[in-house]
Amino acid sequence: MDLFEKVIKGIELPDRARMKEAKERVDNLTKPVGSLGKLEEIAVRLCGITGSTAPDTGKKTAIVMAADNGVCSEGVAAYPQQVTALMAKGMVEGTAGVAVFARMLGADIRVVDIGMKEPAACKGIINMRIRPGTANMAEGPAMSRDEAVRAIETGIQAVFEAADSGSRVIAVGEVGIGNTTSGSAVLAALEGLDPALTTGRGAGLDREGLAAKVRVVESAIRINKPDPADAVDVISKVGGLDIAGMTGVYLGASFRRIPVVIDGFISSVAALAAKRINPITLEYMFPSHLSAEKGGGLALERLGLKPYLDLDMRLGEGSGAVLALNIIEAAARSLKQMKTFDEIGIKRV
Amino acid sequence: MDLFEKVIKGIELPDRARMKEAKERVDNLTKPVGSLGKLEEIAVRLCGITGSTAPDTGKKTAIVMAADNGVCSEGVAAYPQQVTALMAKGMVEGTAGVAVFARMLGADIRVVDIGMKEPAACKGIINMRIRPGTANMAEGPAMSRDEAVRAIETGIQAVFEAADSGSRVIAVGEVGIGNTTSGSAVLAALEGLDPALTTGRGAGLDREGLAAKVRVVESAIRINKPDPADAVDVISKVGGLDIAGMTGVYLGASFRRIPVVIDGFISSVAALAAKRINPITLEYMFPSHLSAEKGGGLALERLGLKPYLDLDMRLGEGSGAVLALNIIEAAARSLKQMKTFDEIGIKRV
Repeated sequence: MDLFEKVIKGIELPDRARMKEAKERVDNLTKPVGSLGKLEEIAVRLCGITGSTAPDTGKKTAIVMAADNGVCSEGVAAYPQQVTALMAKGMVEGTAGVAVFARMLGADIRVVDIGMKEPAACKGIINMRIRPGTANMAEGPAMSRDEAVRAIETGIQAVFEAADSGSRVIAVGEVGIGNTTSGSAVLAALEGLDPALTTGRGAGLDREGLAAKVRVVESAIRINKPDPADAVDVISKVGGLDIAGMTGVYLGASFRRIPVVIDGFISSVAALAAKRINPITLEYMFPSHLSAEKGGGLALERLGLKPYLDLDMRLGEGSGAVLALNIIEAAARSLKQMKTFDEIGIKRV
Repeated sequence: MDLFEKVIKGIELPDRARMKEAKERVDNLTKPVGSLGKLEEIAVRLCGITGSTAPDTGKKTAIVMAADNGVCSEGVAAYPQQVTALMAKGMVEGTAGVAVFARMLGADIRVVDIGMKEPAACKGIINMRIRPGTANMAEGPAMSRDEAVRAIETGIQAVFEAADSGSRVIAVGEVGIGNTTSGSAVLAALEGLDPALTTGRGAGLDREGLAAKVRVVESAIRINKPDPADAVDVISKVGGLDIAGMTGVYLGASFRRIPVVIDGFISSVAALAAKRINPITLEYMFPSHLSAEKGGGLALERLGLKPYLDLDMRLGEGSGAVLALNIIEAAARSLKQMKTFDEIGIKRV
């Protein structure tokens, strides 16, 4: 059995008994019942995920999938393709947004080259290249099915390596010029939505640019006919290597019972793909922010998740997911460090 | 001239020239223009507030005003009054929600007894008592005008002391059984709103309890006839010592050019009072979360602010404001630690 099959079959439900115990403690903490809102739901779920009523959320890692997209030759992106590698470099050097926020929170960052056009000319980027960018999905499949499976397995491998070096919470991000186009196509194909609803301005298209981008997404779907029931088919035909890799991160984190935080639009689309492959993964996922990119709210809605942060961000990189890591940490700490009414010796009202 | 007058007259506009410089840098950072959303607005405003394009946001302090409310004798609260002191004790001992979150972020916490019923029987609470709780506003004014002014000055003093010991960002919180009732009354009186719109379930009233609470707020306003144009009159008649103290914190922070983060419902009401006293204070205020307490969203709307966090929290204590301190810090760091396109030597698109 290959890694992909093994992981899909091996994902288990969170531990309901631990969740019940956690809920009892949360309800007895020195605060009005329910007054910590979503932090309470997060705390309870962390216990189910980790199988512990004192969940270890200490070490946190952002995994960022860097890849290029052949569809850029259709003129869908506001930036030239070489910016993918420049941004990946900025991440390992600590000057890109996600790196600044990760450093602030003491989180690690792992930038994975899963298929940039050229291998990065700087140290620190993890080489797990599947191919030098995808093919142009407006002319045919972005990659083969085998490549998509290998890219998903790369994501699984990346999260396994993070877990093996002690990471207990994962934030998921991406960088790749053109990837809002593939994200829009995957969302439209998976959910049977009109590309006009799933396609936004990305890094800064004008009205004409947006209209052209919608037409590219429409023709990519028309030409490739992705099967919505088969997320791997969708990803291989109209997706990207970064989306495939992130899909693997969700699956791998769920398999290893690690909470995993979604970023904005593109990582939400990958989360939908992971959920289509194995619906239990949803129980391991936490939203972060409401992206200002058009399809962001829609993708979260389809996941049934409500974001914690509303900052009008649309940077990608995992920047919003990293900012939400503190929310996860706060939830865990409320459970571990707040006292209960019993502990301070007064009767609960 | 007394402290109150001096502060009101001394509040200056943020530095527009620094804001313009900051905006130029923000727009040239290595990210699509506008893609950091509200973090960009925060970063620019921090520069205007501090008068520096590299704003120091290092040391952060939560100031929590603890007070009791005479209106509790009307049966408006789900918890007995002694819980105010118990929660204040939990804050200095580090086991209350706000204390857990402050410790997580490395922020200080200053718990000010501005008028609990009994002086706290534990160390660490700062004694700045005006009176042992307010009078029952359903029967007459909660306090005298002089007491309200002194409570506002206490808040000013508290923020001056924090500033003098190096605090560069302030989060505002409160604790006081019964204070959603006074908060609802102040909001209704200041904004000319129906108490049914401003009054919620607080720490957990049922439907009958809520209906009774609305009637108490209505009669407090009917009996005391607060003047909406005069926030001090409103606070003294239907407010609380905590609300007065927090109003002072906003005014004092603005006077000292320190960014100040609003918490949930009650601190938003105090922010409205501060804005009524001097509208420039609004430029020093940052929202944090959308409280689940009924009037929370309404109070923020009246301030014209949109919250960053949506966690269904309604704990008070400054807990939501403290959670948002990292958003302020992230904004400052994006400005200081991200590189510009010029700095990495590529032409901006």
